[in-house]
Amino acid sequence: MREQAVYDLLARLQDRIVAALEALDGGRFSTDLWQRAEGGGGVTRMLEDGAVYERAGVNVSRVHGASLPASATASRPQLAGRAYEAMGLSLVLHPRNPYCPTVHMNTRFFSAGETWWFGGGMDLTPYYGFVEDARHFHATCRDALAPYGADYYPRYKRWCDEYFRLRHRGEPRGVGGIFYDDLADRDFDFSFALARSVAEHFLPAYMPILERRRGAPYGERERDFQAYRRGRYVEFNLVYDRGTLFGLQSGGRTESILMSLPPRAAWRYDWQPAPGSPEEALYKEFLVPRDWV
Amino acid sequence: MREQAVYDLLARLQDRIVAALEALDGGRFSTDLWQRAEGGGGVTRMLEDGAVYERAGVNVSRVHGASLPASATASRPQLAGRAYEAMGLSLVLHPRNPYCPTVHMNTRFFSAGETWWFGGGMDLTPYYGFVEDARHFHATCRDALAPYGADYYPRYKRWCDEYFRLRHRGEPRGVGGIFYDDLADRDFDFSFALARSVAEHFLPAYMPILERRRGAPYGERERDFQAYRRGRYVEFNLVYDRGTLFGLQSGGRTESILMSLPPRAAWRYDWQPAPGSPEEALYKEFLVPRDWV
Repeated sequence: MREQAVYDLLARLQDRIVAALEALDGGRFSTDLWQRAEGGGGVTRMLEDGAVYERAGVNVSRVHGASLPASATASRPQLAGRAYEAMGLSLVLHPRNPYCPTVHMNTRFFSAGETWWFGGGMDLTPYYGFVEDARHFHATCRDALAPYGADYYPRYKRWCDEYFRLRHRGEPRGVGGIFYDDLADRDFDFSFALARSVAEHFLPAYMPILERRRGAPYGERERDFQAYRRGRYVEFNLVYDRGTLFGLQSGGRTESILMSLPPRAAWRYDWQPAPGSPEEALYKEFLVPRDWV
Repeated sequence: MREQAVYDLLARLQDRIVAALEALDGGRFSTDLWQRAEGGGGVTRMLEDGAVYERAGVNVSRVHGASLPASATASRPQLAGRAYEAMGLSLVLHPRNPYCPTVHMNTRFFSAGETWWFGGGMDLTPYYGFVEDARHFHATCRDALAPYGADYYPRYKRWCDEYFRLRHRGEPRGVGGIFYDDLADRDFDFSFALARSVAEHFLPAYMPILERRRGAPYGERERDFQAYRRGRYVEFNLVYDRGTLFGLQSGGRTESILMSLPPRAAWRYDWQPAPGSPEEALYKEFLVPRDWV
């Protein structure tokens, strides 16, 4: 059965990713098994106040419902209101060190009757930008997709730039990555293999960056800027993110959905980085759509 | 002209409220005059890092547009897409002392052709609850409305409880107050007088509470709880608040709209207050709809 095959992959990936994250941090993720009154449930694994991660969540859920919310699919509005099954692996890591970027990865699978599709991707949100890191992340995304066709990476890279955009700020969330939705190309096996490849490239895309930056010295200035920029992460997730809205609208488990929010965030009226500062460089050189590979 | 009369009141009220807030804090509000490309503009007055207020914003805006967004009025969907004029006074005060509640007040006026209506209200969001404060705030709201009819306060109090509700948390934002929208009762003069009375009762509703609590000693524990609860304020404003969504959707000035967000906020996975603690008392005794007067 398709659903079971996808779920098995998501559960195995959650274990593997959590083990790799724990090995780097030295801390242990908590494990919460939860059920949803309307059907289904999930496993939420969290690590807070770790040596490396200030807040890290890796969540797997599998739910079914009688009526698909409109936020679940942008391009299949005719399915709104239909019975559905939805499952996904979602992770957001907020490292403590401001030189380590925040990262998000997601793999999801929807089915409604005979219709099914995958969605997912990963994207990187630095506080201080490094060209080397953005290139490595994007190159790994490209490698994940290359076996399935040369046009996937440029399409999904562009989609990511369009999706992770704070329209009210005229800003992207970070340096992007890849995003896809409504994937039902060729047949199930092909689409499943592509989704799996993206998910399995998460650790090689992100861990080398974390290892490179986690020892960088920082002070209050860098923490303040990190908190300010984390405010943008909050704005994006609560105002625009379809996964978050779908979860909150469909009676999802709030604490598991909002594990994506940062441990701390700050807002400051009309704040502008000083000319020539590293904070200004983030805006000028990194928070602009660029071809990284 | 109706629009000018309402705008004059809002501008005078902004001056009077800012002067009263400055007198208590000792600091000075900055003044930003801004214009909106699509028409109109506003005056944003902010005080950050003050002695009493950690972040305080008092904003007046007057904008017009060619197409009214759906978020502008819940009960007049037939006006969506029509040319409109919208003006409002909006304030949010986030005091530094966790024993001082956050407060919000709003007065707004919409017109679209021959149709016009007022909206507004005020509500209180304590971090540590005091029955005396909640009673005083609600009693002042009741007094503001009493001259216009005995049924306004109970209706607008209930409306406030329904509106300022985090459905994904099953929690109210705070201890409520009054909320109204689509007010066009009797004639313009009557509705205007009611809206004015509510706005003019803001200072007597809130300042005595601030004066009573601002000297209370507090430590890291109270600041941590305040930051955690301020996360709820962020969640409400970005997920549910119609004024915020209207502003962001209609190309409003982001920094003026998001002046309502707290200076700092925190999220912590599945956090629960200790049994018998003052933090638990907030949830049990204050974050429940109650008749305060």
